[in-house]
Amino acid sequence: MEIGRVVGTVVSTVKSSGLNSFKLLVVTPLSVAEELTAANGPSSYVAIDLVGVGEGEVVLVTKGSAARVSDPTVPTDAAIVAVVDSVQIGTQNAYSKT
Amino acid sequence: MEIGRVVGTVVSTVKSSGLNSFKLLVVTPLSVAEELTAANGPSSYVAIDLVGVGEGEVVLVTKGSAARVSDPTVPTDAAIVAVVDSVQIGTQNAYSKT
Amino acid sequence: MEIGRVVGTVVSTVKSSGLNSFKLLVVTPLSVAEELTAANGPSSYVAIDLVGVGEGEVVLVTKGSAARVSDPTVPTDAAIVAVVDSVQIGTQNAYSKT
Amino acid sequence: MEIGRVVGTVVSTVKSSGLNSFKLLVVTPLSVAEELTAANGPSSYVAIDLVGVGEGEVVLVTKGSAARVSDPTVPTDAAIVAVVDSVQIGTQNAYSKT
Amino acid sequence: MEIGRVVGTVVSTVKSSGLNSFKLLVVTPLSVAEELTAANGPSSYVAIDLVGVGEGEVVLVTKGSAARVSDPTVPTDAAIVAVVDSVQIGTQNAYSKT
Repeated sequence: MEIGRVVGTVVSTVKSSGLNSFKLLVVTPLSVAEELTAANGPSSYVAIDLVGVGEGEVVLVTKGSAARVSDPTVPTDAAIVAVVDSVQIGTQNAYSKT
Repeated sequence: MEIGRVVGTVVSTVKSSGLNSFKLLVVTPLSVAEELTAANGPSSYVAIDLVGVGEGEVVLVTKGSAARVSDPTVPTDAAIVAVVDSVQIGTQNAYSKT
Repeated sequence: MEIGRVVGTVVSTVKSSGLNSFKLLVVTPLSVAEELTAANGPSSYVAIDLVGVGEGEVVLVTKGSAARVSDPTVPTDAAIVAVVDSVQIGTQNAYSKT
Repeated sequence: MEIGRVVGTVVSTVKSSGLNSFKLLVVTPLSVAEELTAANGPSSYVAIDLVGVGEGEVVLVTKGSAARVSDPTVPTDAAIVAVVDSVQIGTQNAYSKT
Repeated sequence: MEIGRVVGTVVSTVKSSGLNSFKLLVVTPLSVAEELTAANGPSSYVAIDLVGVGEGEVVLVTKGSAARVSDPTVPTDAAIVAVVDSVQIGTQNAYSKT
């Protein structure tokens, strides 16, 4: 899974019916080191929200068929499956939700 | 899922029969920030159209097995599953379909 | 799916039995813009041929589990599923099979 | 599979129920040559622990649907499936657990 | 599938039981052009051996769920499915097993 930050939303009227009941959120990947920082390489993507997150929150995103474990009829390849409370790297606290 | 723009079409006569009833569209990945811009890294690819889109439209593309949720017999790894109406990044409107 | 060009063949005697009845072709990814050009980043790979293609032909390749839609017993992650007749980008003809 | 080092942990209260019984570990990819070194390109990610590992250990991580072989109801795309005792490259010992 | 060279082995005692009966081999990706050369970008990874290969051999590796076609209970995302006898690029012999 990948750590990311929810930065926005997508609105769509014309879409596959399997997407109807989900929020479509824009997620920016975060690099995990002594702190969480914006990742350089990969760009943002869109994930469905399975846990109820707010904008700005740090989350875990699962990709591929894992995104459809709870509902195989949703045509998504990315799903937010957790809100991150804290990330500990070695003895250092890299992130804490405030 | 990935945000992209439909930029073209592929015509093919000799193909797997599972592809017969779908339009094959060329999609360019878009980078999502304060505006949508052409992504630098990845190049264009071909997706089937599941929602009925027009050239130039901004769309959501799902990849991998998610592209076959609605029809597991289609040998594709990419499908257009939504037309994007708008993208909101924080308090900013990054894109609106006009 | 990805647009590529068939540039060669692989011969193998010792292999998984599921690969026995397929040609193993070397495919070079092509970048799609106003013309099709050799892609800089990714390198060539090997795909099974599901449609009967010749060397030098421009093809569509599907990756991942999509490559096994027609036969789930073949241990491949890439399959040629179409011969490309033409690619149209906007009003421009980016490629035509001659 | 990929060789990585366990460098940290993620704590999450609000998450998909399928993740409940697993430790969420931060893994840094390692490059395999004459020695194991931190990989330059890809950044760290989060995997569930299937074998019981400790921080700092070198492990094998499997990605994609392979991460759900032992439990298809866990919405993860990465799982630690082995603790690495040693890596031999040619006649050279690239790594030994001490 | 990807062409690679077997360059080493991984030994692991503590691992998922599904991995028990397989050799874990380190594979370096090869670039395919007029000759096979070490690929610059991607680093080595670990694959199970399904065909019985020796160190130094050039092989075909399949990734993702394709690696589990012959045994869906093995938690791997990479498997060696063929020993490469020769690679022909156009009229040129890029590789021959000697």
